[in-house]
Amino acid sequence: MIEKRTPIKVTEAVNRVMAYAREHTYEIVSIEESDGRVLAEDIFANQPIPPFDKSPYDGFAFKAADTNQASQDYAVSFEVVEHIPAGTMSSRTLQHGEAARIMTGAPLPRGADCVAMFEVCQSYEDNEKELMSIKRTIQAGDNVNHKGSETLEGTHLIEKGTYIHPGVKAVLATFGYATVHVSKKPVIGLFTTGTELLDVKDDLVPGKIRNSNGHMIASQIKRAGGEVKMLGTLADDFETSYNAIQETLHEVDMVITTGGVSVGDYDLMPDIYDKLEAEQLFNKVAMRPGSVTTVAVKGDQLLFGLSGNPSACYVGFELFVRPVIQKAMFSKQPYPPKSKAYLTTDFPKPNPFTRFVRSRVFFKDGQLWIEPAGPDKSAVVTSLIETNAFMMLPGGTRGFKKGDRVEVIFLETVYGQKEPWTT
Amino acid sequence: MIEKRTPIKVTEAVNRVMAYAREHTYEIVSIEESDGRVLAEDIFANQPIPPFDKSPYDGFAFKAADTNQASQDYAVSFEVVEHIPAGTMSSRTLQHGEAARIMTGAPLPRGADCVAMFEVCQSYEDNEKELMSIKRTIQAGDNVNHKGSETLEGTHLIEKGTYIHPGVKAVLATFGYATVHVSKKPVIGLFTTGTELLDVKDDLVPGKIRNSNGHMIASQIKRAGGEVKMLGTLADDFETSYNAIQETLHEVDMVITTGGVSVGDYDLMPDIYDKLEAEQLFNKVAMRPGSVTTVAVKGDQLLFGLSGNPSACYVGFELFVRPVIQKAMFSKQPYPPKSKAYLTTDFPKPNPFTRFVRSRVFFKDGQLWIEPAGPDKSAVVTSLIETNAFMMLPGGTRGFKKGDRVEVIFLETVYGQKEPWTT
Repeated sequence: MIEKRTPIKVTEAVNRVMAYAREHTYEIVSIEESDGRVLAEDIFANQPIPPFDKSPYDGFAFKAADTNQASQDYAVSFEVVEHIPAGTMSSRTLQHGEAARIMTGAPLPRGADCVAMFEVCQSYEDNEKELMSIKRTIQAGDNVNHKGSETLEGTHLIEKGTYIHPGVKAVLATFGYATVHVSKKPVIGLFTTGTELLDVKDDLVPGKIRNSNGHMIASQIKRAGGEVKMLGTLADDFETSYNAIQETLHEVDMVITTGGVSVGDYDLMPDIYDKLEAEQLFNKVAMRPGSVTTVAVKGDQLLFGLSGNPSACYVGFELFVRPVIQKAMFSKQPYPPKSKAYLTTDFPKPNPFTRFVRSRVFFKDGQLWIEPAGPDKSAVVTSLIETNAFMMLPGGTRGFKKGDRVEVIFLETVYGQKEPWTT
Repeated sequence: MIEKRTPIKVTEAVNRVMAYAREHTYEIVSIEESDGRVLAEDIFANQPIPPFDKSPYDGFAFKAADTNQASQDYAVSFEVVEHIPAGTMSSRTLQHGEAARIMTGAPLPRGADCVAMFEVCQSYEDNEKELMSIKRTIQAGDNVNHKGSETLEGTHLIEKGTYIHPGVKAVLATFGYATVHVSKKPVIGLFTTGTELLDVKDDLVPGKIRNSNGHMIASQIKRAGGEVKMLGTLADDFETSYNAIQETLHEVDMVITTGGVSVGDYDLMPDIYDKLEAEQLFNKVAMRPGSVTTVAVKGDQLLFGLSGNPSACYVGFELFVRPVIQKAMFSKQPYPPKSKAYLTTDFPKPNPFTRFVRSRVFFKDGQLWIEPAGPDKSAVVTSLIETNAFMMLPGGTRGFKKGDRVEVIFLETVYGQKEPWTT
């Protein structure tokens, strides 16, 4: 009755899953709605930036050569023949001895090749004429933002798969992207399993607990960029569970179940995968928590059987589901990013398998530190409050000391890394 | 005509603004809609966790004392008198010599004080009786998650002002929060100003550019947690602009304008603040870019006059507006978090004022590195594509070398810091 399962390494498990990860399709949204989405198109400059020679300051435009004789002792005078606010094209061509009063962002008038800022010019009137004088030489090109000097037309600016944040939106707006191609969010069907689970709005009854995994995973799906289809809780009954999962397959891109993957009498998922004729990619991973995490594939659809234990469920999602969602959305960096941090405290537990400790990373004195977020027991849900990272301790290690440098996997980030990490 | 303005230090400017920052009100949303919001209530454990003595494994529950004589050479036998799946309360009290087959998460039956995992027990049948034997001693309390051992009833678990992420949602669900009090998003009225601005969907016409600041700031407002009320572009006309701003004050919590705060002929904001009888908190900050950033207050409403230059506008928002939005939402860490990173390249520019360089931070070999994100000219919008941080270079410094350690302000983070940084 106690089925023997052969654990595989975490990296191998990730690779087996990612072999089935596919880029999904796109949809078109308005620029206003594009925040936090992922670009499904490469963005090229469809015009030069700036689109015309333009003044970066408030000042006067004229021919630089007219200042050749200017010096502290000799002011050169110009007649100010027009005012050019931003947004206005001058209709005349400046001649020698003429200047245009020009505002920041305004286009240089024809005939002008430089700008002098107000601060170096003296404005005055004489005989009802508006005049300006300057006591220094100015070079052609000074204080001019030349057409195309920032970006040439045709430049490849932003890569498909890029997360859309305020800076990306500024560029999209500059180039007239009123609508944007973004990756369509993959739809993930989510079942929680277990007769013991109450709904969040139910009063507690003896022997039962409220379903926290459903809300947690739904939130993790959204954080990873996916769309959740909440399919409710399945009681520990084979036929009902099988039918529900089988029916949902044509409505969603992938399926997550929580619970039912261990070796208990009511752990139905392995048999359900068999009856679905889904191939199990693995059913045991050399990790803590979450060693019973099982992933199967039916056709091209992934079925993630996450553990019912809150932290195992949480870890299993971030390691195996998040990269698949990211890949579906065209991300070029689908894997959770890894770095190193100093451990704030002793962590004496030995690690027969690779251990993912729910942790909090933070900066102190310019260094990254990591501390376990509460008791490291897989059933302890409150440890997740402070969790923004995993401490990843390699299998075969015997405990760590305060000040040791350990590996950290970041969770609260919109950035990923290109290559999977190995452990 | 060239008004003299007295620059104040960035820290002083931030403090003057934050003196008017107020906590706003709350609203009630369903737990499903609470992702990414900020808690407007403290969360206490309204029940112990676990709510009952429970088995963390699949195994057998019995009286530990019954194994006192067990050893490798002497198996103690139990009659398995019932099966307890998760979610089911046993109705009987176990007697000496009796065991209950118990599943992970199921409540311990009365009379039992320990659990032995399947792996250490031998199941068998004899004379149609279900039996189990064990060859080791088990202590009372072994493999039992005692009621309240994770969290005692009444424990203060999560602080008001906490960002709601998957771990927080797991805890909210555990304690039956079907609805959650979250901070109401402050509504920020956003005007862009400038006759030169075209809408994103307009074709380019000579001398004009598309409005990128509006979309950028709208996105920054959303990233900071606020709600945008897009009020369109104001042409450089005093009466129209004054009336539009004056009318919007009763509809929004604060107002942002971009442009119109410099000393050009069409820079109307200072006069508009005067006519509104709004007090200017400052109109010059010792920083680059964004030195002309002006903030005024009318009654208890802040009016942010950001520069029209894209990067100055971007920087001004993050330094002055973001903390006000965060404070409004009850955040206890309203300021953008700061740390240190190694510079990837020489940055030879001298810094007469504190300089905020749009930059990209990243981890390499466990260290934080920072590199400027493209040309550091305030009109260059494409530098924002890679920007996820500012490099903050103190005023009075003369340029930095590759490998120098510099200060970094993080932008793409849901976490902040409690105290403002000084510069």
